[in-house]
Amino acid sequence: MIEQWRGFTGSHWVDDVNVRDFIQNNYTPYDGDESFLAKPTEATDKLWGKLQELQHQERAKGGVLDMETEVVSGINAYGPGYISEELKDLEAVVGLQTDKPLKRAFMPYGGIKMAQEACTTYGYTPNPKFDQIFNEYHKTHNQAVFDAYTPEMRLARKNKIITGLPDTYGRGRIVGDYRRVALYGIDFLVAQKKADLANCGCGTMTDDIIRQREELADQIKALNAMKVMAASYGFDISKPANNAREAVQWLYFGYLAAIKTQNGAAMSVGRVSTFLDIYIQRDINEGTLTEAQAQELIDHLVMKLRMVKFARIPSYNQLFSGDPVWATLEVAGFGMDGRHMVTKNDFRFLHTLENMGPSPEPNLTVLYTSKLPENFRKYAAKISINTSSIQYENDDVMRVEWGDDYSICCCVSATQTGKEMQFFGARANLAKAMLYAINGGIDCKTGMQVGPKLPKITSEYLNYDEVMANYDIVLEWLSNLYVNVLNLIQYMHDKYYYEAAEMALIDTDVRRTFATGIAGFSHVVDSISAIKYAKVKPIRDENGIAVDFEIEGDFPRYGNDDDRADKIAVWLLKTFLTKLKKRHTYRDSEATTSILTITSNVVYGKATGSTPDGRKAGQPLAPGANPSYGAEQSGLLASLNSVAKLPYEYALDGISNTQTISPDALGHSEDERINNLVNVLDGYFDQGPHHLNVNVFGTEKLLDAMEHPEKPEYANFTIRVSGYAVKFIDLTKEQQMDVISRTCHKAM
Amino acid sequence: MIEQWRGFTGSHWVDDVNVRDFIQNNYTPYDGDESFLAKPTEATDKLWGKLQELQHQERAKGGVLDMETEVVSGINAYGPGYISEELKDLEAVVGLQTDKPLKRAFMPYGGIKMAQEACTTYGYTPNPKFDQIFNEYHKTHNQAVFDAYTPEMRLARKNKIITGLPDTYGRGRIVGDYRRVALYGIDFLVAQKKADLANCGCGTMTDDIIRQREELADQIKALNAMKVMAASYGFDISKPANNAREAVQWLYFGYLAAIKTQNGAAMSVGRVSTFLDIYIQRDINEGTLTEAQAQELIDHLVMKLRMVKFARIPSYNQLFSGDPVWATLEVAGFGMDGRHMVTKNDFRFLHTLENMGPSPEPNLTVLYTSKLPENFRKYAAKISINTSSIQYENDDVMRVEWGDDYSICCCVSATQTGKEMQFFGARANLAKAMLYAINGGIDCKTGMQVGPKLPKITSEYLNYDEVMANYDIVLEWLSNLYVNVLNLIQYMHDKYYYEAAEMALIDTDVRRTFATGIAGFSHVVDSISAIKYAKVKPIRDENGIAVDFEIEGDFPRYGNDDDRADKIAVWLLKTFLTKLKKRHTYRDSEATTSILTITSNVVYGKATGSTPDGRKAGQPLAPGANPSYGAEQSGLLASLNSVAKLPYEYALDGISNTQTISPDALGHSEDERINNLVNVLDGYFDQGPHHLNVNVFGTEKLLDAMEHPEKPEYANFTIRVSGYAVKFIDLTKEQQMDVISRTCHKAM
Repeated sequence: MIEQWRGFTGSHWVDDVNVRDFIQNNYTPYDGDESFLAKPTEATDKLWGKLQELQHQERAKGGVLDMETEVVSGINAYGPGYISEELKDLEAVVGLQTDKPLKRAFMPYGGIKMAQEACTTYGYTPNPKFDQIFNEYHKTHNQAVFDAYTPEMRLARKNKIITGLPDTYGRGRIVGDYRRVALYGIDFLVAQKKADLANCGCGTMTDDIIRQREELADQIKALNAMKVMAASYGFDISKPANNAREAVQWLYFGYLAAIKTQNGAAMSVGRVSTFLDIYIQRDINEGTLTEAQAQELIDHLVMKLRMVKFARIPSYNQLFSGDPVWATLEVAGFGMDGRHMVTKNDFRFLHTLENMGPSPEPNLTVLYTSKLPENFRKYAAKISINTSSIQYENDDVMRVEWGDDYSICCCVSATQTGKEMQFFGARANLAKAMLYAINGGIDCKTGMQVGPKLPKITSEYLNYDEVMANYDIVLEWLSNLYVNVLNLIQYMHDKYYYEAAEMALIDTDVRRTFATGIAGFSHVVDSISAIKYAKVKPIRDENGIAVDFEIEGDFPRYGNDDDRADKIAVWLLKTFLTKLKKRHTYRDSEATTSILTITSNVVYGKATGSTPDGRKAGQPLAPGANPSYGAEQSGLLASLNSVAKLPYEYALDGISNTQTISPDALGHSEDERINNLVNVLDGYFDQGPHHLNVNVFGTEKLLDAMEHPEKPEYANFTIRVSGYAVKFIDLTKEQQMDVISRTCHKAM
Repeated sequence: MIEQWRGFTGSHWVDDVNVRDFIQNNYTPYDGDESFLAKPTEATDKLWGKLQELQHQERAKGGVLDMETEVVSGINAYGPGYISEELKDLEAVVGLQTDKPLKRAFMPYGGIKMAQEACTTYGYTPNPKFDQIFNEYHKTHNQAVFDAYTPEMRLARKNKIITGLPDTYGRGRIVGDYRRVALYGIDFLVAQKKADLANCGCGTMTDDIIRQREELADQIKALNAMKVMAASYGFDISKPANNAREAVQWLYFGYLAAIKTQNGAAMSVGRVSTFLDIYIQRDINEGTLTEAQAQELIDHLVMKLRMVKFARIPSYNQLFSGDPVWATLEVAGFGMDGRHMVTKNDFRFLHTLENMGPSPEPNLTVLYTSKLPENFRKYAAKISINTSSIQYENDDVMRVEWGDDYSICCCVSATQTGKEMQFFGARANLAKAMLYAINGGIDCKTGMQVGPKLPKITSEYLNYDEVMANYDIVLEWLSNLYVNVLNLIQYMHDKYYYEAAEMALIDTDVRRTFATGIAGFSHVVDSISAIKYAKVKPIRDENGIAVDFEIEGDFPRYGNDDDRADKIAVWLLKTFLTKLKKRHTYRDSEATTSILTITSNVVYGKATGSTPDGRKAGQPLAPGANPSYGAEQSGLLASLNSVAKLPYEYALDGISNTQTISPDALGHSEDERINNLVNVLDGYFDQGPHHLNVNVFGTEKLLDAMEHPEKPEYANFTIRVSGYAVKFIDLTKEQQMDVISRTCHKAM
């Protein structure tokens, strides 16, 4: 072993890039409790204090502290930057996206118009020269996509039957295996990529091979650029990291290269906790690191992840509210060999929420199974109860699909770390599609013929068979259009905004998934149930368009553990997935789908007419796979049971479920609450569902925070929404109202 | 008919873009002689005088008059420009590539390094900002190609077994159907392309469909940009041309858009003569145009075509000597309906060489058949004898392949006008390949293992079977590598340097040919003949590499109408083509090959060791399909007979043959010379060959011009070289020597 690898065991990872093999050979499972954890160091307090001050200024300035107008972002667009010049020696982990903290970079490649609008929105004026450069000389992703869109695609987009498409910014969701920088150093990684380039194709230059060769060349350039960037901070990352501090720093430089070059909606960090624990444990064993220093490293890394920012436009902020970046980072999980993968470092990452208070970022995700050590499960529950800042995903179902080294690439979607990339695909509004089935393909909001020209349903009461036959035709049309919109977007993104820095840290022989998503899920399920089990009478306007519905009689609703409704949910998911999977997909990627809407449920709902389940026009859709607001009448557990019935294998891109529990419903002491939450999580996840966002607070706290955002206690008040966390006071009033209207379970 | 189409007949061309149908319905064949032709107008004399003055200054400044360093070329990068401000009202056809006459544009898309080097070579400094823009922000074609090249490709390129590749500049050879601008106006063309976009793909977005859709969008933008450009000169080209002057002007604006956006080696004008005659004839019939005005229009168009310039680098100039642009333009030809297509306008184009003296550009090409009217054949022969500025191509063989509306897209290669594009492919050095077969794949010039590692031939005398078995292996390797180098280049060119302006004037459902080429043809043929019919003894160096050859005994040589040699020539062509055609080609294009070397025969020869036919290391290869220097021992006709045996269908990209005849050999009076040259052309082309460059002068004139370039009579002294014409004094000394050493037939 070379000096940097002293004390490590294993052989596969030594010869080839194989971080999983390194982890499995070297990590130390930890079964103990949180009592070993250290308080923040003075350096952490000072830096975090400074950063909070900056965040305060940022909020005071309308959400943006500073913006770049002269420099196009790139790995080496700037020299080194620090949180504060006077405190720079305190930073255990260095590196900023731009030259100043919280200053947002100018990133035109996804779309020059968007980059310019983001500036002007906040009162900044980008240098006019960029207008010519990124319109005349260099086409951007956004322009290219719109060049190639069909009129049908534009119409579907305009009518918001397909929404949130990554056609004006980076698609994100690609997680470089940033651990590789630490474990191998850049030179080894460059050598591997050069070998891949040498073996890319047998000599016959098909389009696919040519594209791959060019991508590899760009990856190699990106790796070399990372070395230059690190050198500007005084570090030589050509060789492997020699200790924990270097490991954290090297890894972060890898991530920094990604966020300097891409403004994807989700820029995940990945599964780094167990990996870094190995370095920390070695240093502790060697006596070169104390627990306080170890915690400081993690605190400072997390602080950097809390600082990631992108320049966004208002329409983006409406979809993804609260300035999220999905710097998603996982802890825990279970190994294929039967050992749990909880390490002390997983405690340290959760502990950052205590040392530096609650925070939406990084998007801390516990890879959960009831087989995790009880001490860890309790500690996670405790942090959930105190901060509402973490989410849980079912390692038992994901491990089957992705093994034991996957990362969450967005809010909840898993990808194999370093072996897979995902084409992000936003979502189709299946509730609106239901209205198209009833209204002959006409959008009741705009009056336009958007979907297939079907006979409108004209009967007094909706007939189940008639509606379902039309719905099948609409879903067939929609799935086809949707997949092809995405084919086009992904092609152009590869062409105009390729993620060289991230893909450089992923195997060349990469698995590609083609993500899609469903919005309005619960409303379709309940609508079908209403049509089937009750009598639904459309209220039609003068054009014969159903603009509202009267429901006579009761019907089973999704979210009450009632198989009559829940089976419709399973049918809907499977039917849409089947229709997606039969299409041609870009680069032979594997089509998957998801039921997760982020905060976009509000915008989507606004664009969707009244639905046959009783939801009124313009009201928000239920987020993700959540039952509809008010539909859950049987308590938390029944609601969880309904969601748990959705087979994960039909929605490998993720099924998000967000629940809020009143502290009192959980118990009357901290211990009782912790034990009850652990029981809820164990019971839920053992049934095979995918995900749970846990919020522990009452509606009254939300109301008070909405009224009095200035109270210091609300400055960092964080809540989980669909697939991520936000500071409540950063939400728009509209979205705050939506969160407040969601079911807060007061009973189990 | 709309006003602009008054008097025209036919219907297909009215409903769809179909210029051929328009021509066939409306042209007036002319059987008369040249006596109707008009002298240059005063305006022509003044403008041409001014231009000659500028050309003189250009030569005095080392070949470049002025260069752009601040503006990136584009359709509307400049406002209007004129030959001279004070004479601008005299210009019957307006439009310059840049803002000043003979000023060369800055064109970085093919390769920023080349664009910069072209500037610095001539003492200009491009704005340093372009360094960042075209290296960091926007990748150029050249960088992309080199990103994707394999080491084997770089090695082959470095060792010049494959040479002249379009990987640092535009590939050229795409002829927009510029006539469409005149006949239809831009609005109609935009509408057609929009309809094509609407019908591009059935909704399934495969990579091919997406690429095509984006290309169509870029074509439409280019068409609209042409309108803006024309408006800056005071013309509205949205509607069809209303008269001859507008037709010439509209057509030229289309061509101008091409040469403002592309710096292809060949930027042909196409088959415009017969088309324009229709407009001129209508105006003459309507009494709105005199013959003098008609000639002025053609003279001024030709003057503009004589002004086309690109910024080149020294290594480019070595390959393509004398600053050529291949603004190739055809006259004559024969229709599918049995009518010849000679019009008065064909006389007018040839007459420009009298009105304004000899000139290399436009590259005037007579589409020849002995069935053309005698008066025209005689006039063309007369112009050849007096100017050595025109070439002849066999319409009888081309018509079978390409119909009666093809254009010559480079020096000699035919493409269907507006229906086809060609991927230019430079050439492979088959003479060098022969040496690889003998030397085990080692390049005797560099000592590198470039070709397949074969056993070196070690026998005292070369054994025919052994050499041919090895040669087959080398050709197999070379054809594979060559096709794949080109696949890569064409892919990147489409990606980074797409010809939107030219492709906008070509049918969307375009036929694509994949051109390749052969260099060293005659030397391979004669080498094989020597090995077969004589005894060839290699002289080997200390490494066993054959560096020279001694030939014992005589052998038949290509160029003497001897079937023993000529059959080897046919075998070689067919064998190489067969090996090329079996490969995957980019965009399912049709592989073709050519035997034409431009002036690159000198550079190729320099890089090629001694060959078994007796040619010494470093000596120029014979150009194109020409027999080797000194091999032709049986007179002009025998030489022509040999070349005529090569079947055109094996080399659809062209077979170039350049011959020089002493005036005395042709006859002792002008009439006699004309009659004899017509007889030579008739006799030659009736045998089915492809091409002939005709030079009529003696070696003594070349020697005198080399010694005394300052003599006024040599200022415009033009000669035909392989596939184009140059001013002799613009050639390098080395190339002048090469031309002088070529066979000048003193007997028929």
